[in-house]
Amino acid sequence: MTDETTPERSPFRITLLATGGTIEKSYDAHSGQLTLAVPVIERLLEALDLPDFIVRVERLMAKDSLDMTDADRDEIVDATAAVLAAGNTDAVLITHGTDTLADTAASLTAALPSPDLPVILTGAMRPYRVADSDAAQNVAQALMAARLLAPGVHAVLHGRAVPGDRVVKDYERLTIAPRR
Amino acid sequence: MTDETTPERSPFRITLLATGGTIEKSYDAHSGQLTLAVPVIERLLEALDLPDFIVRVERLMAKDSLDMTDADRDEIVDATAAVLAAGNTDAVLITHGTDTLADTAASLTAALPSPDLPVILTGAMRPYRVADSDAAQNVAQALMAARLLAPGVHAVLHGRAVPGDRVVKDYERLTIAPRR
Amino acid sequence: MTDETTPERSPFRITLLATGGTIEKSYDAHSGQLTLAVPVIERLLEALDLPDFIVRVERLMAKDSLDMTDADRDEIVDATAAVLAAGNTDAVLITHGTDTLADTAASLTAALPSPDLPVILTGAMRPYRVADSDAAQNVAQALMAARLLAPGVHAVLHGRAVPGDRVVKDYERLTIAPRR
Amino acid sequence: MTDETTPERSPFRITLLATGGTIEKSYDAHSGQLTLAVPVIERLLEALDLPDFIVRVERLMAKDSLDMTDADRDEIVDATAAVLAAGNTDAVLITHGTDTLADTAASLTAALPSPDLPVILTGAMRPYRVADSDAAQNVAQALMAARLLAPGVHAVLHGRAVPGDRVVKDYERLTIAPRR
Repeated sequence: MTDETTPERSPFRITLLATGGTIEKSYDAHSGQLTLAVPVIERLLEALDLPDFIVRVERLMAKDSLDMTDADRDEIVDATAAVLAAGNTDAVLITHGTDTLADTAASLTAALPSPDLPVILTGAMRPYRVADSDAAQNVAQALMAARLLAPGVHAVLHGRAVPGDRVVKDYERLTIAPRR
Repeated sequence: MTDETTPERSPFRITLLATGGTIEKSYDAHSGQLTLAVPVIERLLEALDLPDFIVRVERLMAKDSLDMTDADRDEIVDATAAVLAAGNTDAVLITHGTDTLADTAASLTAALPSPDLPVILTGAMRPYRVADSDAAQNVAQALMAARLLAPGVHAVLHGRAVPGDRVVKDYERLTIAPRR
Repeated sequence: MTDETTPERSPFRITLLATGGTIEKSYDAHSGQLTLAVPVIERLLEALDLPDFIVRVERLMAKDSLDMTDADRDEIVDATAAVLAAGNTDAVLITHGTDTLADTAASLTAALPSPDLPVILTGAMRPYRVADSDAAQNVAQALMAARLLAPGVHAVLHGRAVPGDRVVKDYERLTIAPRR
Repeated sequence: MTDETTPERSPFRITLLATGGTIEKSYDAHSGQLTLAVPVIERLLEALDLPDFIVRVERLMAKDSLDMTDADRDEIVDATAAVLAAGNTDAVLITHGTDTLADTAASLTAALPSPDLPVILTGAMRPYRVADSDAAQNVAQALMAARLLAPGVHAVLHGRAVPGDRVVKDYERLTIAPRR
């Protein structure tokens, strides 16, 4: 919960499961398209100041979340369960496309109702490699939230944490919000 | 504490007290120096995606924190107390130079031992207007922490929250850490 | 044409004809696509230091150059001829997609074999609003070239000026080169 | 000198003599100052698309141009003469502080009245590593000018080329201009 009541882990260990999504899209000048051909999340992390974190990146897939299948979602749940079981991390961070982030958050919440660590999904409305991106903000805030949130599945976007079973994408305001 | 136990404020109202510090320094081409002549914090906030925050900026001073006097620190404490008393905000965020951030955090903690809101100090090791700055990261993380931390005085830098009476600057690693 | 032999125009007047192309593409978070819906060239110009230029932007169209028709090319030729006839500019700069920039350069050269000003086509391999873009470089270099090149049609990209009737896109090296 | 009349060198070989100046200043978080402790010009060059240039960087000194002595200026003249004599480059580019760029330009013009290559001085009003810098623009434009200008000493800043014996700094408009 808070610094007052819980001895703080230092450095704080994050396992980041990368799955693709808008956050990782980058421009391919040969095709003139945004693609997921090149990993981006490592560059984003390097641009942050994280003197008291150990972040280990594990790539599960590189998919637009609209293309994710149930099998992909199962893979994410299984990988998360495996990380939790391994017992060598303080929080799990999952980077994910926003279009079906709510579905994966719901699957994770159903499969892992009482994880003993925070499991946090995040992503971006605009790719890290595009002007005025929200990607670095969201990863920075997800890392902060990983340290402060109670165990459980959460989505973190634009400075708001939403419980994993209540996530919806707000297509008008281009953000993640709690279902009312 | 967490989304599970507390009805979440939406939008979340922040009162940001700006005091200067490295975070706000910008290059003045006439003098060839970094100065605090131009407010920067508003630009930094505009570059973030904050669809569920209302941030009101109040400028107290524009000082390098090495130049802050006891009177300046009293002014910050008084302004914070006034914001808390006004009762129209959900958290207080104070942008501050890192060199004496620990002193101001200690003064705030002593003067306001049981505030009913989070009071969060943040800053940066490299100005927002300089390449590879940590300023946007720190403000983004402080905004996230403002939503998740318990009431009390805290410093937030580089993804770590430190209780207000235990803040020290780590000059070697260039960060804020808890006193051991 | 060099400073030594020609009295230099100061300020130097540029008429910039914007036609779209990769240089102006920006990310639309609603569709998840790069589009030409928003003008970009004005923002690019504002980010340059041009104390001795007067740049007037005239938008002709906002097209991916692969979608340009002969009618579009005629419109660009006619607009260029009109600017030359008006006699109130020192050079014409045309921003254009690179895929058919060679075709437009050839059309302009054929239609305007002896213009009395430099007519310079430029563009970018990566949008201005994307990380590591070459857009600002190319516009900056085209503005420099506008001041130094002899009258005639030229393409300028990546620090190289190519005569208008010899332009080819080098798809492997992602640049504009002279036909051998 | 235009493409029409002169066989163009491809790739174009630049020898860049780095001397320091505002263009290379970067923020040192330990001292809180802008310093010349770290070379910057190589990073700036890497951020440009230069498929048809070969740029060789030679560092002469790392000085604020206000601190340059007559001996420093002699060193720059001697190094330039040596590069010209070596005969293995197509142009010389000198990065330099703007405060005394005019003095060095005058010294070079006096010492090398008829060089057989363009010798171009450039710099910046705001460091490359600071927001809204003009550094990349100026180097990009100097590289373009290196290809188009006649042999002789020139200063290139903000899209304007000024003969080496007529350079003045315009402190009000923060640019380099020709003496009237």
